Amino acid sequence: MQSPAFILHQPQMGENIGAAARVMGNFGLRDLRLIDPRDGWPNQKAESVAVGSPVLENVKVEFEPTAAMAGLTRIYATTARPRGMEKRVLTPRQAMAEIRAAHQAGERAGVLFGAEKSGLPNELVADADAIITLPVDREFWSLNLAQTVACCAYEWRAGEDVSDDFEEISDPASKEDMDRLFVHLESELERAGFFHPPEKTPLMVNNLRSALVRGRFTEQEVRTFRGAIKALALGRGKARIVRDD
Amino acid sequence: MQSPAFILHQPQMGENIGAAARVMGNFGLRDLRLIDPRDGWPNQKAESVAVGSPVLENVKVEFEPTAAMAGLTRIYATTARPRGMEKRVLTPRQAMAEIRAAHQAGERAGVLFGAEKSGLPNELVADADAIITLPVDREFWSLNLAQTVACCAYEWRAGEDVSDDFEEISDPASKEDMDRLFVHLESELERAGFFHPPEKTPLMVNNLRSALVRGRFTEQEVRTFRGAIKALALGRGKARIVRDD
Repeated sequence: MQSPAFILHQPQMGENIGAAARVMGNFGLRDLRLIDPRDGWPNQKAESVAVGSPVLENVKVEFEPTAAMAGLTRIYATTARPRGMEKRVLTPRQAMAEIRAAHQAGERAGVLFGAEKSGLPNELVADADAIITLPVDREFWSLNLAQTVACCAYEWRAGEDVSDDFEEISDPASKEDMDRLFVHLESELERAGFFHPPEKTPLMVNNLRSALVRGRFTEQEVRTFRGAIKALALGRGKARIVRDD
Repeated sequence: MQSPAFILHQPQMGENIGAAARVMGNFGLRDLRLIDPRDGWPNQKAESVAVGSPVLENVKVEFEPTAAMAGLTRIYATTARPRGMEKRVLTPRQAMAEIRAAHQAGERAGVLFGAEKSGLPNELVADADAIITLPVDREFWSLNLAQTVACCAYEWRAGEDVSDDFEEISDPASKEDMDRLFVHLESELERAGFFHPPEKTPLMVNNLRSALVRGRFTEQEVRTFRGAIKALALGRGKARIVRDD
C-alpha cells in the first residue's frame, strides 16, 4: 500500500529533518516534503543524520503549503496543544488506520508537522481534515519534532501486516519427541532418587513437564537436551545433584 | 497500571540517554535503568537533552545486568538482527500487550536495549524471555537507540486507554438546528437560481446536505454559517456566484 506523505512545515534544524528521513526510511515511508526549511536545501546536517535513508533522495522542497500538498486529498495536522478548534482529534493509531482505509479507496493523505518551537500555524491546522495528538502524559509533555515523526512513522508501519517478515520457530519438535524426552528425563531422575517421597512423583513429573513444554523446543533442542540428560546420568556420582523444587 | 522498566546496556552517548528519558517521560514510563554507561553518571549531555524529564530523577545505574534487573520477572531484549536463537520474536505491539497482561497478573517486566553500535551481547539476548524486533523495512534498516526507545515507549502508551484525555466536540448542533441551516441555505440558493435545471433540485439538495452533515457542526458553527449565508444573500449581485457541482 502507498504510504502517506509526511510534510515538515518550516523545520529549523537539519538534524531533525535528517532524523525524520532516517526513521521514515525504516518504516517504509518514502515521501518527505519540506515547506520553507529555515536553512535552505540541501542541508549537510540533514544528510549526515539521515545515514543514507532513501527518503532523502526524493525529498520535495516548496515555499508554499499548497504546493507541498500537491496530489494529496486529505491532511492530518499534528499538534501537541489544543487549538480551540472544532475538529476531530485522533491518536496516531486512529489516524493511520483512517489513512489506510482512505488509501484503499484511492485517496492520498499527508501528515503535517510543525516547526520545532512554534508548532503549526493555526491556519494550517484549521485547513486540516483532522488533528493528530500523541497520547502524551499530562505530567510531562515535551516531544521533539523527530520523536513525533518517529512515533507516527512507526504507527504507520505497525499497522501493516508484516508478519511474513519474521521467522517462526523452525522445525518444532513433535509431541512424540517431547514425550520421549520426558520419559528419558524421568527415568534418569527416578534412578537418581530424585522423586522423593514416592507419592509425590506424579505431581513432580507434571511440574517438570509443564515447565519444559512452555519452551516449545525444536527437534534439535530435544536432541541436545537428551544428550545433556545422558551426560548427566553417566556422570552420576561425579557431580552432586542439587534439587530445587 | 505500572509501566515496564527500560534498561539501556552500556549506552555510549549521553544524548541518547537523555532522549530516552525525554520520550519515556512523555509516554508515562518512569523506570529507566542503565547498565555500565560509557561516560559514567551523572551525565551533563543526558540532562540537557532530557529537558526536565521526571525519568532522570530516578534513574538507576548499575554495573551488572543482574543488579539492573532487580525486581523484574521477565525480560524482553530488543534486537535489530536475527541471532540464530530459538526464541519468540515479537513486535513492540505484541510485546507491550504481553507485558500489560503480565503486569495485570502481578509480574514486572523490563525491556533491554543494546549499545549504539554493537547492540545487546548474545548472552543477554539468550537469557531474555523473548525478543522484540521493530517492524523495519528490509530495504533500509537503521534505527538509532533513541528512536528504538521512542517507538517502544510510544507503543506502551498507545495501548493504554487514554481516551478520557481527549476532548470531544463540544455543544454539537441539534438536528433541528442543522435542518434550519439547510432550509435557509436552500431557500437562498433557490432565490439565486442555483437549482438548475429544476428537476435536479432534489439530487443537488441531497448532495449539499450530505456534504455538510459530515462536518458535525456545533451550535456556534451553525450560527456562523447562517450568518455567512445571510451575508451572501444580501450581497447578491455584488459577487459572481461560481457553481461547482
